[in-house]
Amino acid sequence: MTIRVGVNGYGVIGKRVADAVKLQTDMELIGVGDVADDWRIGVARAQGVPIYLASGDGSAGSLEDMARAADLVIDCTPKGVAAKNTALYRQLGVKFIVQGGEKHGVAGHSFVADVSYASALDRHSTRVVSCNTTSIVRVFGALRRAGLLRRARGTLLRRALDPWESHLGGIMNTLVPEAHVPSHQGPDARTVDPALDVVTMAVKVPETLGHMHFWSADLNGAPTREQVRDVLSASPRIAFVREGDGLGAINAVKERMLDLGRPRGDLYEVAILEEALTVENGELFCTYMVDNQAIVIPETIDAIRALMGGEPDAAASMAKTNRALAIAAA
Amino acid sequence: MTIRVGVNGYGVIGKRVADAVKLQTDMELIGVGDVADDWRIGVARAQGVPIYLASGDGSAGSLEDMARAADLVIDCTPKGVAAKNTALYRQLGVKFIVQGGEKHGVAGHSFVADVSYASALDRHSTRVVSCNTTSIVRVFGALRRAGLLRRARGTLLRRALDPWESHLGGIMNTLVPEAHVPSHQGPDARTVDPALDVVTMAVKVPETLGHMHFWSADLNGAPTREQVRDVLSASPRIAFVREGDGLGAINAVKERMLDLGRPRGDLYEVAILEEALTVENGELFCTYMVDNQAIVIPETIDAIRALMGGEPDAAASMAKTNRALAIAAA
Amino acid sequence: MTIRVGVNGYGVIGKRVADAVKLQTDMELIGVGDVADDWRIGVARAQGVPIYLASGDGSAGSLEDMARAADLVIDCTPKGVAAKNTALYRQLGVKFIVQGGEKHGVAGHSFVADVSYASALDRHSTRVVSCNTTSIVRVFGALRRAGLLRRARGTLLRRALDPWESHLGGIMNTLVPEAHVPSHQGPDARTVDPALDVVTMAVKVPETLGHMHFWSADLNGAPTREQVRDVLSASPRIAFVREGDGLGAINAVKERMLDLGRPRGDLYEVAILEEALTVENGELFCTYMVDNQAIVIPETIDAIRALMGGEPDAAASMAKTNRALAIAAA
Amino acid sequence: MTIRVGVNGYGVIGKRVADAVKLQTDMELIGVGDVADDWRIGVARAQGVPIYLASGDGSAGSLEDMARAADLVIDCTPKGVAAKNTALYRQLGVKFIVQGGEKHGVAGHSFVADVSYASALDRHSTRVVSCNTTSIVRVFGALRRAGLLRRARGTLLRRALDPWESHLGGIMNTLVPEAHVPSHQGPDARTVDPALDVVTMAVKVPETLGHMHFWSADLNGAPTREQVRDVLSASPRIAFVREGDGLGAINAVKERMLDLGRPRGDLYEVAILEEALTVENGELFCTYMVDNQAIVIPETIDAIRALMGGEPDAAASMAKTNRALAIAAA
Repeated sequence: MTIRVGVNGYGVIGKRVADAVKLQTDMELIGVGDVADDWRIGVARAQGVPIYLASGDGSAGSLEDMARAADLVIDCTPKGVAAKNTALYRQLGVKFIVQGGEKHGVAGHSFVADVSYASALDRHSTRVVSCNTTSIVRVFGALRRAGLLRRARGTLLRRALDPWESHLGGIMNTLVPEAHVPSHQGPDARTVDPALDVVTMAVKVPETLGHMHFWSADLNGAPTREQVRDVLSASPRIAFVREGDGLGAINAVKERMLDLGRPRGDLYEVAILEEALTVENGELFCTYMVDNQAIVIPETIDAIRALMGGEPDAAASMAKTNRALAIAAA
Repeated sequence: MTIRVGVNGYGVIGKRVADAVKLQTDMELIGVGDVADDWRIGVARAQGVPIYLASGDGSAGSLEDMARAADLVIDCTPKGVAAKNTALYRQLGVKFIVQGGEKHGVAGHSFVADVSYASALDRHSTRVVSCNTTSIVRVFGALRRAGLLRRARGTLLRRALDPWESHLGGIMNTLVPEAHVPSHQGPDARTVDPALDVVTMAVKVPETLGHMHFWSADLNGAPTREQVRDVLSASPRIAFVREGDGLGAINAVKERMLDLGRPRGDLYEVAILEEALTVENGELFCTYMVDNQAIVIPETIDAIRALMGGEPDAAASMAKTNRALAIAAA
Repeated sequence: MTIRVGVNGYGVIGKRVADAVKLQTDMELIGVGDVADDWRIGVARAQGVPIYLASGDGSAGSLEDMARAADLVIDCTPKGVAAKNTALYRQLGVKFIVQGGEKHGVAGHSFVADVSYASALDRHSTRVVSCNTTSIVRVFGALRRAGLLRRARGTLLRRALDPWESHLGGIMNTLVPEAHVPSHQGPDARTVDPALDVVTMAVKVPETLGHMHFWSADLNGAPTREQVRDVLSASPRIAFVREGDGLGAINAVKERMLDLGRPRGDLYEVAILEEALTVENGELFCTYMVDNQAIVIPETIDAIRALMGGEPDAAASMAKTNRALAIAAA
Repeated sequence: MTIRVGVNGYGVIGKRVADAVKLQTDMELIGVGDVADDWRIGVARAQGVPIYLASGDGSAGSLEDMARAADLVIDCTPKGVAAKNTALYRQLGVKFIVQGGEKHGVAGHSFVADVSYASALDRHSTRVVSCNTTSIVRVFGALRRAGLLRRARGTLLRRALDPWESHLGGIMNTLVPEAHVPSHQGPDARTVDPALDVVTMAVKVPETLGHMHFWSADLNGAPTREQVRDVLSASPRIAFVREGDGLGAINAVKERMLDLGRPRGDLYEVAILEEALTVENGELFCTYMVDNQAIVIPETIDAIRALMGGEPDAAASMAKTNRALAIAAA
């Protein structure tokens, strides 16, 4: 029995989630919804996807119609809007997933597949945490669960805007640090893994390709670089890229994703720079790229399966998702 | 009988040509060749494409081996390298196509499908002209052949580098005009259409997405905007984009290509900004985007067919190419 | 007798006008006014400039107090605000100058020193036209008055934001053309020189240093390049820069202004690229840089003198202004 | 008796050093030297500065002539060139200062005024360390000497090129991390202050205004934020900027320097973001801007005095330098 999924909010995340749902053998995209009927919705319509519009004028009806028709709605609307929409989902008894712009309390549960699949099983709702938080939980959660991590301190370089919107409020020839320390990602990571001792500072940089993190961490014991690397490379959603292969800069990494035929050049993995991964005297230094448009897509797919309860095993769900998205190929 | 095509030079253009050849029902990609065996070649190898290397260590042999095995080689190596390679092609009696970095004399024939398909039939070689020149011939060649164009004067904004190489010599927060007027595109366009009266100035701008042209032109007679637009829209390789649809900036146009599922987000068409197309008192003003990575790909495919002579009709070849590349869908 | 000048609006233009007024021997800066008391006003205060604030809490009083104390107010407030302020100036009988963001009708007179000094003598008010329009009148007005210009068609590359504000709404890795042709500068130039036949297209580019124009023009007769250059070089507010000297890119030109000790690195002149100036078969091609923060400063100083009527000769005023701003030195 | 100073290498640093020397009452700029006679040298010549050229054709002779005429030469030539030049200086018995591009061994002594003034007294030569290293020694050296610092871990965002050269090899819409950890600044800081426990990672970012550092540090004891801030604000070469004043982004900070009338908008101080300075549980988090073109200028002036030995007191020299450069005013 396939899971009937509706996607509300057809923007940067929504359109990727919709395309990823279509690639799953155990899911069906019953349609996408939005408040605006612009060129993005036009592409979905041309592809034959049923359209639901806030106005009710969608080919398939209103957003409420979509919620009624679905087993589960992925709400990818802007921050705060999704929080309001949940009242409808709850009233209709339809399960839902919100994205990382919303607070933990909106769903009462926060999701990164590695950690919280089991606790999400059969729940009514969950929140897939933000791109930066997802990367932190993947990398430092793995080290912590392996008993290696004492604490991590990071600097987050945030792309100022997504590529499509870079004419709508970018920054030029400057850097814009967040004046508040810590930035929200550390506390946010603890909604998924409460034992993580992580503090971050953040700064907006004038590029559109994705985020980049730089970390120093104190480790337990005195593990070798190889031990640390083994823990990280055990995760299929962490990839290593080599400057020696010409992949040291983030634009080259993105080009490789396009060459691989990934939809929209999406990089679903955390991409760690191999040569920079350094372990010395109980300290770890590392840097990685986060494709803010893509990294939460596989997590969202796993979250669907967890909420619907049909697949009780996290690893099995992740393997299914990875296969459908060709994540092994990277 | 399929045409056996080899691609020499697996960079920005070469990899796109190779992928486009694979999509044609009347062609077979026999392999790709390069001097370097880097991550780009690695992707091709992983896709099962036979690899030919200058060193001779390719899975399938040397560049000479590729030339021997092919009916036709597309040489996409850097400017000047292709010119040298042609000696080998001529010696082996294999047909070849060079790209717009080379001079007209290298092949003795310059190609834009609209204009020079017939004269390329059964030739030994041709040169697909550069991205900017291709766009000029598509747009102003069409107007000239319709008897509408007297002369055109243009300003060409050139992206400073391609996305993958933007860490290898870009420009930041500045503009770099070409000190020589006219820039080479006007004279180059006349290698395809000798009757074109076109003069251009050029300037490098700090972005990586593509070029943008701004034109004023004097027309014959006093055609209406509709007459001019009809001539342009008759070409399937000219598309119109509307600022009113949110597609006024070139980053938004590229996002749409990614959403359409175009490989690498490629825009094969000249994309004219609808609202800016102005015809008044015998003058035309217009602006369009040129995706320098993509626009020559369909031309190259047509050039293959022309040289091999199996399809005598330009329109039929262009339709076949467009269908394979989903150009109608844009 | 010195002219008592107040400056309302202490932003990009206002602070430069205030500093320029201080350098004139026949003018006195009686103070600067603003609605906000931020770090910019703080710098003026630290320099001992009397401060007038909308709130009335300035060290020297309110904006109305400043208008009462001045012979003339330069209103450099944002577009539309100045238009409203003029009611007060008229009521108090104080002369005023508005900037190019306002419409011609706000003052009923538009000013570029070369052309409209005489008609501004003893007027109550004028409008110093925008940076782009000023450059057009300087360059093409000079050619027209010399009988050489038939018509000019230009492409205007506009810096997307000023340096200080580039974190408040910039554009990144894209180009944003104006969808309407002609852009407003051509018609605006005719408010100063009604005989100018000028049409422009405009595009925002991702840099902050200034604008750049690219022109083709039809000339009367068949003047030589030298004749055209002589007309242009006769103006002290037009400078020539050479790529051969390393000054081909606009960032290098700005560096030179800083090296010259110009306040804030200001380039008051239109900077024409020497090598690109081309005259052939009755056509002119040229490109120049417009420092949008600086070019109207000398014009504003001249406009003050014209309105106050003490210096009846345009050339004498311009020479005085140029000397004070070291314009000859460039 | 004034110190006769020659400056060899009239680029980004050299021209600033030359201008700063001119502002000191106890120094005389005897001339500037370079290998190339370009527009930069032209500005110096127009200002009446004696010019020495490698060719010997300078108005004042050759580089060797300059070295003979000087008490001390500041060598600001590119990395590696200065190292070669020192043979001449030693042979002629003229004192010299090299910049941070050179290795410690070139002069056998490394200089940051706060720390190494006394040990530089009457020496034959010293090396003013790089901009980033200077900032590290100012900030973390101060904390260490106050007994507060245990160790510091930093991420350095490096402007990809200086403003004047940003058309000669920039990076666009990408981030380029250094693949090697630690980057060289930590070890380099220990050439000045061997007790500093500092490790850094570095990344090139697509802007030209300056560097930005982000730090986490472990402190001794559990000092309050106020105690830490007091130590830092005791240095006149550390300034605090407030986001609340509109100075959170580095472009705004630079605009303020231009408004203050600083030559070329130079920021000589390390500019710490006030609101982000955080002290909690024995940890410090902070971020600051480093104007790579300017920060070493006051250090170089102090180094001149130290080598010449006339002013034995570091604090007195620094006060003199600061006064001449209006550093107190920021």
